Amino acid sequence: MFFASDNWAGAHRSIAERLLQESTGFAAAYGTSELDRRVEARFAEIFEREVSVFFVATGTAANSLSLASVQRPGGITFCHSEAHVIEDECGAPDFFSSARLVAVPGEAGKIDPDKLAKKIAGFPADAVHHGRATAVTITQATEIGTVYSLSEIDAISAIAKQSNLPLHMDGARFANALVALGATPAEMTWKRGVDILSFGGTKNGCWCAEAIVFFNPEQAKEMPFIRKRAAQLFSKSRFIAAQFDGYFENNLWLDLAGHSNGMADRLRAGISGSNSARLAWATTSNEVFAVIPRSAAKVAEERGAKFYEWPVPTATPELVGSEETLIRLVTSFATTEADVDGFLSCLVA
Amino acid sequence: MFFASDNWAGAHRSIAERLLQESTGFAAAYGTSELDRRVEARFAEIFEREVSVFFVATGTAANSLSLASVQRPGGITFCHSEAHVIEDECGAPDFFSSARLVAVPGEAGKIDPDKLAKKIAGFPADAVHHGRATAVTITQATEIGTVYSLSEIDAISAIAKQSNLPLHMDGARFANALVALGATPAEMTWKRGVDILSFGGTKNGCWCAEAIVFFNPEQAKEMPFIRKRAAQLFSKSRFIAAQFDGYFENNLWLDLAGHSNGMADRLRAGISGSNSARLAWATTSNEVFAVIPRSAAKVAEERGAKFYEWPVPTATPELVGSEETLIRLVTSFATTEADVDGFLSCLVA
Amino acid sequence: MFFASDNWAGAHRSIAERLLQESTGFAAAYGTSELDRRVEARFAEIFEREVSVFFVATGTAANSLSLASVQRPGGITFCHSEAHVIEDECGAPDFFSSARLVAVPGEAGKIDPDKLAKKIAGFPADAVHHGRATAVTITQATEIGTVYSLSEIDAISAIAKQSNLPLHMDGARFANALVALGATPAEMTWKRGVDILSFGGTKNGCWCAEAIVFFNPEQAKEMPFIRKRAAQLFSKSRFIAAQFDGYFENNLWLDLAGHSNGMADRLRAGISGSNSARLAWATTSNEVFAVIPRSAAKVAEERGAKFYEWPVPTATPELVGSEETLIRLVTSFATTEADVDGFLSCLVA
Amino acid sequence: MFFASDNWAGAHRSIAERLLQESTGFAAAYGTSELDRRVEARFAEIFEREVSVFFVATGTAANSLSLASVQRPGGITFCHSEAHVIEDECGAPDFFSSARLVAVPGEAGKIDPDKLAKKIAGFPADAVHHGRATAVTITQATEIGTVYSLSEIDAISAIAKQSNLPLHMDGARFANALVALGATPAEMTWKRGVDILSFGGTKNGCWCAEAIVFFNPEQAKEMPFIRKRAAQLFSKSRFIAAQFDGYFENNLWLDLAGHSNGMADRLRAGISGSNSARLAWATTSNEVFAVIPRSAAKVAEERGAKFYEWPVPTATPELVGSEETLIRLVTSFATTEADVDGFLSCLVA
Repeated sequence: MFFASDNWAGAHRSIAERLLQESTGFAAAYGTSELDRRVEARFAEIFEREVSVFFVATGTAANSLSLASVQRPGGITFCHSEAHVIEDECGAPDFFSSARLVAVPGEAGKIDPDKLAKKIAGFPADAVHHGRATAVTITQATEIGTVYSLSEIDAISAIAKQSNLPLHMDGARFANALVALGATPAEMTWKRGVDILSFGGTKNGCWCAEAIVFFNPEQAKEMPFIRKRAAQLFSKSRFIAAQFDGYFENNLWLDLAGHSNGMADRLRAGISGSNSARLAWATTSNEVFAVIPRSAAKVAEERGAKFYEWPVPTATPELVGSEETLIRLVTSFATTEADVDGFLSCLVA
Repeated sequence: MFFASDNWAGAHRSIAERLLQESTGFAAAYGTSELDRRVEARFAEIFEREVSVFFVATGTAANSLSLASVQRPGGITFCHSEAHVIEDECGAPDFFSSARLVAVPGEAGKIDPDKLAKKIAGFPADAVHHGRATAVTITQATEIGTVYSLSEIDAISAIAKQSNLPLHMDGARFANALVALGATPAEMTWKRGVDILSFGGTKNGCWCAEAIVFFNPEQAKEMPFIRKRAAQLFSKSRFIAAQFDGYFENNLWLDLAGHSNGMADRLRAGISGSNSARLAWATTSNEVFAVIPRSAAKVAEERGAKFYEWPVPTATPELVGSEETLIRLVTSFATTEADVDGFLSCLVA
Repeated sequence: MFFASDNWAGAHRSIAERLLQESTGFAAAYGTSELDRRVEARFAEIFEREVSVFFVATGTAANSLSLASVQRPGGITFCHSEAHVIEDECGAPDFFSSARLVAVPGEAGKIDPDKLAKKIAGFPADAVHHGRATAVTITQATEIGTVYSLSEIDAISAIAKQSNLPLHMDGARFANALVALGATPAEMTWKRGVDILSFGGTKNGCWCAEAIVFFNPEQAKEMPFIRKRAAQLFSKSRFIAAQFDGYFENNLWLDLAGHSNGMADRLRAGISGSNSARLAWATTSNEVFAVIPRSAAKVAEERGAKFYEWPVPTATPELVGSEETLIRLVTSFATTEADVDGFLSCLVA
Repeated sequence: MFFASDNWAGAHRSIAERLLQESTGFAAAYGTSELDRRVEARFAEIFEREVSVFFVATGTAANSLSLASVQRPGGITFCHSEAHVIEDECGAPDFFSSARLVAVPGEAGKIDPDKLAKKIAGFPADAVHHGRATAVTITQATEIGTVYSLSEIDAISAIAKQSNLPLHMDGARFANALVALGATPAEMTWKRGVDILSFGGTKNGCWCAEAIVFFNPEQAKEMPFIRKRAAQLFSKSRFIAAQFDGYFENNLWLDLAGHSNGMADRLRAGISGSNSARLAWATTSNEVFAVIPRSAAKVAEERGAKFYEWPVPTATPELVGSEETLIRLVTSFATTEADVDGFLSCLVA
């Protein structure tokens, strides 16, 4: 009953075995091996266009270097108020890009397009004192389990394009969002105007596989130096490639995300049907936020369930009663029906 | 016949299998799992004292964050003229520490203690224009295959301590140096006055396992934030821990380095005994530098040998004749006697 | 009728003449002259304690280097939502300190102590993902013309001290605040718990005289290197010293601020007594915010008045009627009664 | 007898009076006043082409921001081994540009073109580990009083252009070099291929007047943000403009440099004709390096002369006898014949 985070899971057996298989033999280092090349080509197929791909060690690195690649002095990146880049990366995006993040609010964990437009307008191009707008970043799926629809991405993208700002997508849970939407990778990214993607594999069954994907390779030309200077160029890069190789094989990645989302659906159904608990808000990816009795939370913990209590949003204090608590449940490729049912049984205890 | 670099090798089977074994189950993320704790304790045993250990993704990260942890504004780190930090890390140490590297020359790839003392003296504590001495870093084994003796480390350490400068060791090939010296980890580090160590496992049989080791945990207190801000905190950190777990088991790491050095010995013996080739300079670790006929190099390449030509040191142009070339040969845990003998046979062709 | 900003004024004659007088002769450079020393001692007298003083070129430099001096990796400085450091310095504080600014709201341009406490609580000391609280900065007088009372400073200071955070004061208009409160420099700073002060002279009659004042010289020990590395160490530093020398002579600085505030009082009185205009909010320093008819604004401009329209606070859109506009009027040492009366006469036109 | 540095002098009376005159009245702040515009136009006249001009507070700022404006990740700026940027700016150029300085040796304080070409060749464009060449900077006049001839600048420029590297000139003593060469500003800069100039006025009679001059305004488009973020945008910028206004009026600047160089000539003649002292090397600007008896140095100091002893170049230890010392003498606009003769008289004592 591990619902603390999808990064508490290990690695999917197929990916782990693919790594084992890669362990023998010799290959050129620093991302120049044939396998590296082959996996990059695989990314191009998946996204249905030429792309530039850069493996890095962490999702924070993918986000930070993506944003650094489009920064200029005095630059400002707009993100949602609860975005991972502003809340959970210890200032890494600011550090690598010497730029500032400006938070834009919005319902359901998504940037409100009108509010984005207004924020951007606060930074006219010649206002040297304020700094200048240089990028927009969105998270798909969001930090609170919701997913931007394709038209919602269009709306953000249109505003970014109006101001000539590159659009970055933090796809730490890219596959979960994709499956939730039933869209293709191309449809959810460059066809919507996304320029740079943090493509996460770690949370969905790899043990360390993150990539920065540029849909316009011209924009990627500084990245080899940005990455090396950031100490993110693996010598045995082929082991990242091998993970992605296994991840993409026979659409394993989509199957894993499908399983993960499905387990979240099972949780959602169980909670919705419960007398004592309820969903805090609607989600469609592999994160579920629920309001449950404190007593049920205690029972679940006693039975070995792992999950985090979540801060009650300041805007909606009435969401959670005095005897209740707000919790986050994250499913993963490794979550089983038994795990879900075991947790749900605590709610009726 | 892969002698291009030890990072062209894959991962040792025991380590790869240890990774596979770790792939199941759930564990706390971001370095807080039991396995992470256990491996940190293992480091303490190996070094015979309390240590603080931080896993990072690359050797460049280990060096850069080590140096960043002791930097202050206007700071200067002294390194050998050919050190990896100044030659091969794309400015990462400068970037992370906002400090400057100052090169100190020295024979055989090692800092000359007298020249180090003179360089440091050029930065009196109150000379704000020049900047100020803040750290010394040495590489063990060095970039050109040599190894500092314990007394040579003492000499550097004494000078660093005189000026109250922390001493860092870049141990990308730590195990190879250790085996070459026949010393214990403690003897080669903190007993000599080394304060911070970049402990490399990747080149010696892991696929990605680098650690920063602080011998005085008090000095490590900024490191959790330095590492996270540098985007070097793995979510599934336990997979780094698992590699080290396998690496240390039954002294595998020392066996692998012993094998690697032994293969280099076999190369050295073969080259020394050759009529047509000779060692460019004496080395004792797993790197061999040889002057061979261009014709022999061509033969070797035709037979599939991989190795790099090396720039002739500007101070000794006479080292290499007009029909000759200087090459670097690096052995690894995966090098076989057949590889070595196959290469040597090219010299007599 | 120049009310655009106090930095549109020139330099007070006494200060300009003091500069002229200093132009002859020779003196040691880079802040080591006798005059530099003497003026630093004058600061100590004025603040009634030992201080460390560092001249810099701009108010942005004073703020940025002050905050840089107390930063650590992943650090966060708390400031008011409308503070100059976050709104008008093009990211300089973030750049110099590699730290993030987090905005805290509050009425009347002042940080709300309760909200500050809550924000700080959001960064527990061991939460490496969020970063960590490292400093608090307040602006005195504030960006919107108000002045923290001594007890209001106490309230902020108490919260900062509880979390062991240094407290910085942006005193770009220090003298105006001081005169408005009728307090001594000591009372408004270190006696309230302020640790570092940006002491501005430029807006109040100098042409370029800004100083960073440390009330605990021990905290200043990195600053010589921080300042030099920031390219803020003047070679002919004695010309900054000379301006402060003239500024402090016979309490000129307090007289100038008194004049400036008095002219603002005259504006406030005139506007309050007007039929057509009103004060947007109460201020006590040399900035006045008024709601006036658009027609009056047009008349004033035609008569040569210079002032800025100010954005209507989003929280109070009803503040300004459809035929009205919100304007900012800033007085200075050089403002005359005729200027004020000339402007006021536009309101009755 | 002040020969310690030209920045020990004050400000020339004409410039000081121009400042006094500017002290009255009001003008737009932050570099937007009419005077700012007029002085920028004056720069264009002087350099015989359109230029972009940015005032900054110090020579270190001019150099650092110039180099920052052309930097890219992993970038390397080539400078002479004894250049001010690498020896005397506390790492500011590295800090502002996140780039590394690589020293190139050369006789007489000037970069050796062949050695520059070789150094650049060590950084092939695709060698991500080494970093990449991004700029070349020369100092005119040099740190040791010599002056690049026009053809020597051509030689450096040709090499920079071959590698597509922008060429920066540190002109802290630009006027002294200009007068020494008898060249026009255009001839010594953009007609030779110089792209960016640090134009210094402070050492030659202003008290604080430094400007960055871009000969290709297109390259300057990031500079407004770079400067503001660097805390180098003066609010009362017109006072820098006023100094340059006085500096350029009736070619005052060239007269002052001519005087300064003439005083150095007088020193050079006196020393050359002395029995006991000699010139250490030939110089043509306002710096003179002399080997004099220690006894004479002592006499001079007793009579109130101020000058610095200079480190004997390690390459030529024989330059200075055991009873002798190497000293640097710097003349300025304020040096008098009496000062020079007073010093020379010490040599015959």
